[in-house]
Amino acid sequence: MIDHPYFTVEPWRVRATHLDLDVLAQTESVFALSNGHIGWRGNLDEGEPNGIPGAYLNGVWEQFPLATSEAGYGYPEIGQTVVNVTNGKLIRLLVDDEPFDVRYGQLHTHEQILDLRSGLLHRRVDWTSPSGKRIRVESVRLVSLVQRAIAAVQYRVQALGNDVRVVVQSELVANEALPTSVAGDPRVGHSVTQALQTDGHSCAGMRGQLVHHTAGSGLRLACAMDHRVDGPEGLRQDCDSHADLARVTFSTTLAESQSLRIEKLVAYGWSGDRSMTGLRAQVAAALTAARGSGWRGLADQQRQFLEDFWHRADVEVDGDAEVQQAVRFGLFHVLQAAARGEGRAIPAKGLTGPGYDGHTFWDTETFVLPVLTYTHPQAAAHALTWRHSTLPLARERAGQLGLSGAAFPWRTIAGQECSGYWPAGTAAFHVNADIADAVMRYLRITADEDFDRRIAGELLVHTARLWRSLGHRDSRGRFCIDGVTGPDEYSALCDNNVYTNLMAQQNLIAAAEIAVRQPDLRDELVIEDEEIASWRDAAAATYVPFDPALGVHPQADNFTHHEHWDFAGTKADQYPLLLHFPYFDIYRRQVVKQADLVLAMQLRSEAFTPAQKQANFRYYEAITVRDSSLSAATQAVLAAEIGALQLAHDYLAEVARIDLDDLQHNTREGLHLAALAALAGTWTALVAGFGGMRDRGDSPQTAAVSFAPRLPESLDRLAFSLYIRGQRLRVQITHADCRYAISAGADLDIEHHGGPIRLRAGQGVTMSIPAAPQSPQIRQPPHRAPAPQEHRDTEAVGETGSAIR
Amino acid sequence: MIDHPYFTVEPWRVRATHLDLDVLAQTESVFALSNGHIGWRGNLDEGEPNGIPGAYLNGVWEQFPLATSEAGYGYPEIGQTVVNVTNGKLIRLLVDDEPFDVRYGQLHTHEQILDLRSGLLHRRVDWTSPSGKRIRVESVRLVSLVQRAIAAVQYRVQALGNDVRVVVQSELVANEALPTSVAGDPRVGHSVTQALQTDGHSCAGMRGQLVHHTAGSGLRLACAMDHRVDGPEGLRQDCDSHADLARVTFSTTLAESQSLRIEKLVAYGWSGDRSMTGLRAQVAAALTAARGSGWRGLADQQRQFLEDFWHRADVEVDGDAEVQQAVRFGLFHVLQAAARGEGRAIPAKGLTGPGYDGHTFWDTETFVLPVLTYTHPQAAAHALTWRHSTLPLARERAGQLGLSGAAFPWRTIAGQECSGYWPAGTAAFHVNADIADAVMRYLRITADEDFDRRIAGELLVHTARLWRSLGHRDSRGRFCIDGVTGPDEYSALCDNNVYTNLMAQQNLIAAAEIAVRQPDLRDELVIEDEEIASWRDAAAATYVPFDPALGVHPQADNFTHHEHWDFAGTKADQYPLLLHFPYFDIYRRQVVKQADLVLAMQLRSEAFTPAQKQANFRYYEAITVRDSSLSAATQAVLAAEIGALQLAHDYLAEVARIDLDDLQHNTREGLHLAALAALAGTWTALVAGFGGMRDRGDSPQTAAVSFAPRLPESLDRLAFSLYIRGQRLRVQITHADCRYAISAGADLDIEHHGGPIRLRAGQGVTMSIPAAPQSPQIRQPPHRAPAPQEHRDTEAVGETGSAIR
Repeated sequence: MIDHPYFTVEPWRVRATHLDLDVLAQTESVFALSNGHIGWRGNLDEGEPNGIPGAYLNGVWEQFPLATSEAGYGYPEIGQTVVNVTNGKLIRLLVDDEPFDVRYGQLHTHEQILDLRSGLLHRRVDWTSPSGKRIRVESVRLVSLVQRAIAAVQYRVQALGNDVRVVVQSELVANEALPTSVAGDPRVGHSVTQALQTDGHSCAGMRGQLVHHTAGSGLRLACAMDHRVDGPEGLRQDCDSHADLARVTFSTTLAESQSLRIEKLVAYGWSGDRSMTGLRAQVAAALTAARGSGWRGLADQQRQFLEDFWHRADVEVDGDAEVQQAVRFGLFHVLQAAARGEGRAIPAKGLTGPGYDGHTFWDTETFVLPVLTYTHPQAAAHALTWRHSTLPLARERAGQLGLSGAAFPWRTIAGQECSGYWPAGTAAFHVNADIADAVMRYLRITADEDFDRRIAGELLVHTARLWRSLGHRDSRGRFCIDGVTGPDEYSALCDNNVYTNLMAQQNLIAAAEIAVRQPDLRDELVIEDEEIASWRDAAAATYVPFDPALGVHPQADNFTHHEHWDFAGTKADQYPLLLHFPYFDIYRRQVVKQADLVLAMQLRSEAFTPAQKQANFRYYEAITVRDSSLSAATQAVLAAEIGALQLAHDYLAEVARIDLDDLQHNTREGLHLAALAALAGTWTALVAGFGGMRDRGDSPQTAAVSFAPRLPESLDRLAFSLYIRGQRLRVQITHADCRYAISAGADLDIEHHGGPIRLRAGQGVTMSIPAAPQSPQIRQPPHRAPAPQEHRDTEAVGETGSAIR
Repeated sequence: MIDHPYFTVEPWRVRATHLDLDVLAQTESVFALSNGHIGWRGNLDEGEPNGIPGAYLNGVWEQFPLATSEAGYGYPEIGQTVVNVTNGKLIRLLVDDEPFDVRYGQLHTHEQILDLRSGLLHRRVDWTSPSGKRIRVESVRLVSLVQRAIAAVQYRVQALGNDVRVVVQSELVANEALPTSVAGDPRVGHSVTQALQTDGHSCAGMRGQLVHHTAGSGLRLACAMDHRVDGPEGLRQDCDSHADLARVTFSTTLAESQSLRIEKLVAYGWSGDRSMTGLRAQVAAALTAARGSGWRGLADQQRQFLEDFWHRADVEVDGDAEVQQAVRFGLFHVLQAAARGEGRAIPAKGLTGPGYDGHTFWDTETFVLPVLTYTHPQAAAHALTWRHSTLPLARERAGQLGLSGAAFPWRTIAGQECSGYWPAGTAAFHVNADIADAVMRYLRITADEDFDRRIAGELLVHTARLWRSLGHRDSRGRFCIDGVTGPDEYSALCDNNVYTNLMAQQNLIAAAEIAVRQPDLRDELVIEDEEIASWRDAAAATYVPFDPALGVHPQADNFTHHEHWDFAGTKADQYPLLLHFPYFDIYRRQVVKQADLVLAMQLRSEAFTPAQKQANFRYYEAITVRDSSLSAATQAVLAAEIGALQLAHDYLAEVARIDLDDLQHNTREGLHLAALAALAGTWTALVAGFGGMRDRGDSPQTAAVSFAPRLPESLDRLAFSLYIRGQRLRVQITHADCRYAISAGADLDIEHHGGPIRLRAGQGVTMSIPAAPQSPQIRQPPHRAPAPQEHRDTEAVGETGSAIR
């Protein structure tokens, strides 16, 4: 808490009360709007200044050669990176011929508000131009969750003095100049400049349109705009268009307190197949539909969509206002990234920026989809359906690697492997088990029969085949998986990574079960009895190493025999380690970047005894540095389980702070919004941590979920809803007890602290909460303990100075 | 033996009796001349056609950015690659205005002979031009082993008909066009085009000169030529010079059987510091000295130099003519590469071509320097002195990696790490122990006190410090070295690679000993008693894993538990595996590219019992695919030791054939001359294999070498000389006995089959040879057994067709 908070702490809004140009890029990411198809960064309406200008269409990417200094068989040669598409949010303003630019003149107030219930981004500015004309600008922006191809801006400029000449230019701009990326940081993406080749441009009246294609990936995209305008008499209007620009210009002179009000509707479309004329027609049709709704209609639809979502998904936290805000902010961004993805991947950072090249990773299946499965299941289904659509590529890749089944890529946009560093790419085969895990969870929670038939079978069988060919029986008959990289990227190419082995084990079992359940699938994929038996055998013989001398599970073979990292000799500013030490040194020592064995204890909870969980957690806490934002939520979950409730709250608070606090930290790393997986972490830490929710049943037919709720002293109450098999399960936790209720529908079997409960519609059940187990003493490496929560000030903080600094 | 042999089998010559343009690049490498400072590929005098045109100066390189798709801390960012310098060997010929080009007209005979005793490359051509003029061209070429800056050509064109107008253009050419490299093969180097920037050019009379510099690496080089000419009356002569060309032209008309004879002297110089004028003067001075000697004098010096060398170094083999030729050919190339290196590295391929970017690797210390230590020890000293000169860079690199002492580069020209693939680069720390091993051997064999004081101490201490910081004591008190890559490049990032641990162990002991022996060194490097004790402790506790269930040493921890490679499913044309399978799959399985544990059994022979050697050799033979040319010689050595004498001969013959046979194979791999390490292998397989020579004494003061000679039935006699502490030890082996003799000097202690012998000057000792141990049954993977020797035809093969095909 060294830095002054930038965003106020409010339950349903994220509000920046002034403008700090040093953190502009982060602000743009926090205020990014998306529906999973279109993404608009929260850039200022007038385009400049900006951190990173950004508009994205999910699935629009360009390719580039993947550099390598020493070639190797099977190395991917082509990279994919997200493209900054046509910017449709630009509305420039001239006041008496001087551009409205917050860096000049005098900025009296500048406020931006993201409203998590309305889904609207508000901005309100009071500004005096260098020549002394004072105006007020108010804009509201949305990317429609209902009309998938549509985004819109309502823009109002008001004269606060007399005789203010204003010119408003509403633009579509392609191939904007991008900032050069932060050199040397592997987490920053590749920027492709001038990615868009012009196919056509036009304007007429208040409409404009640009059509482009990408040269390498061969994708075509169209963007069109239309306007409604409301202003004083004598308003003039014009339009022009060029290769990379379509513009509609409005000009007038405003008397004191007079306003010019513009509604801008923007439609996007893209395709890898359709012609320019087809695409032009497509966006014109979307625009026509949007005109029918008008701004008001779009805003109403947006609120309704979100109301439904929050009814299913909301989490209430009493006792920590920051966490309350953060869990909703995280849910909002997860929803935005996925809601209308429909057949496309969910990128690690959603559509909020170019980070990680716009790639999707295992993050989606392991960290994001669990949240969506319980809150907006159709989005989880869409994401897994996208994975399924890339199955031919994954099968081809497996063949290239000499393996059976499917080998899904470590990172990709369109399905091809794009990782240029194979020890932490190709070798991280666990992504395949992670996909299977998400499939299994989705099936258990939704009982979606169509998905079961069309999607789940092939995904489970082809990933199981991969594991069967990747693993082998050693001389002691154990099923071993050698030479792979687990979730912890500070180790690589290990034998028998516990996480990987346990996740592969359940993958093999699930494939055997679905093959038995679906005779058609067996025919289609030619699954003999012998093959099913081999999956079950491998699962039964799966080797899980254990170090009896230490009484803990080594993360992988030999891990606990390795030298410990020299934590005492590592300074606070040498984290993240990967930027200050060679992989060589990191890999060979006991130091953990992110939960690996600890994640196994969450996702395969039943494979560990309570005593093992305590011992393992204690052991790994001492060597885990949390150099990945994917770690803290998992650590919170296990801390809560073993009784370290206050530590769990500390981790929870760290997760919650990642984006809305501590901005300097993010700046230095060149990041702009934590991965969605981290944004989802607040939910996970609350629901799986203090709610103790685990979702593994022995088969899709048995008890859906179990709970072991327990609050830390620092929280007063936790309530959340889960959407299970079409029902809304409401869970309300206090220190003393927990109340479970379903509103309607069939009975639901759950567990509370190990005991079964059958819930009936309309009948709540209240269960008392047993005392927490005694937590062992737990230490983190120096400098890497989460900040203790009891000393934190969680009061809302308002504006304290000028509007810009 | 599918291909027809291209080179005749003769004891002292390598002769190509015709010209095959398909294997031109290989022929150029076989016929390359070098003195370790200058290298000239065996290109045709007239420059075209060529496989790869090449002239090199040891230490002249250019830099290029090392590509990486995902950056990482400590990755080298700048690569170094050898530069094709000014071509001084060009002598073009026009016959009645038509260029002499073997591809046109009619080539009646074309013969090239490399004479290993004279050090001269002869060429003799009979050709009829397209217009019907018949000529004979004879050229002789040398790169002087005595006058280091000088190379020379004697060129004679004779008219075989009447009235032949001839024009001879003798040139210096910079920035020749290079062929594009073979894409996708990591073993091929990076070619830098237009590497040379012109500083100046001049010509006068029969002299010409070019001065250039490299833009990135900032090295300046000069090349000058002068001529003597002998021809009929009316000979005209002219000269001209340009930015990249200096030319002296001779023209005349030859009557039948008249000749034009030209002697061309070429001087090279380069420097990273000296000015253009300084460098110009340097090459002019070298040229003046060479003029004093003249062609005859240079050729006489060359023969004398080689006579001295062969007296020290020759190996006689009765019973295998190919091996006899190959061992001399290998020794000749090793000598050429190193003789006058003087303060520069010995590149893996000498100065014969651009392969491996002209880098030096551990090959030098482990495979090449043992041969030089016993045959031309001053060259071994120079190579290690070069390593010592790069110590500041190696210490800097160790610091960057967070390690103490020095971390020498995996591959380099000038001392900086140039490996772009760290799992098989930086992680292959054994290079440091290999350097120490070469230092220890050189000291034991030469007792060079100056080297001991100036070079050995710092190298041994800084490498020992590296090991001490790289290794750690595990919970059982064992000194472990984790996460490193051993010699076998089909495994990576292993714990406790036996080879690495054993080599580090002797490195630590040697450092302790030299520190005790040299009080000045202790002061200079601040070596406390405590540090010496820590080296001894680590050495004493060094962990050497053993698999009791199998009764063999695993190459590294867990190795013998890994899945076996699917040899049955691997087709003959899928080797080398690295071009057909991903590293991922190769690393996790039991498959060995090149001797690793088997090399440990040679270099740390005393660390294994005879029974362990038999069991280990048998185990690793079954999984070693010999995808590296560095492997077969080591396999021959251990095969001989365990009693598999015929197998040892099979491997020996394979090593011997690498360059002078089986050319198609090399073509496909884009290689042109095996690494020097492989060329040195014939010597090693003979001397350490059938001679059973091992050179580890407990300290530099004790018995220098031991022998356990034993011939296979297929050989009749083996005799070789070793140059030990200034004395020539002659060893002559037959099936029944072995005779040892030193010519003069102090007594020499050796061992014969475990028993000590003291040799006195002038008194030979003949010892009988005990029966070989019973070899276990040994199998190699399918397709990877060496060809059995009893069926091979080792008769000389002469010309059988036209001069070109």
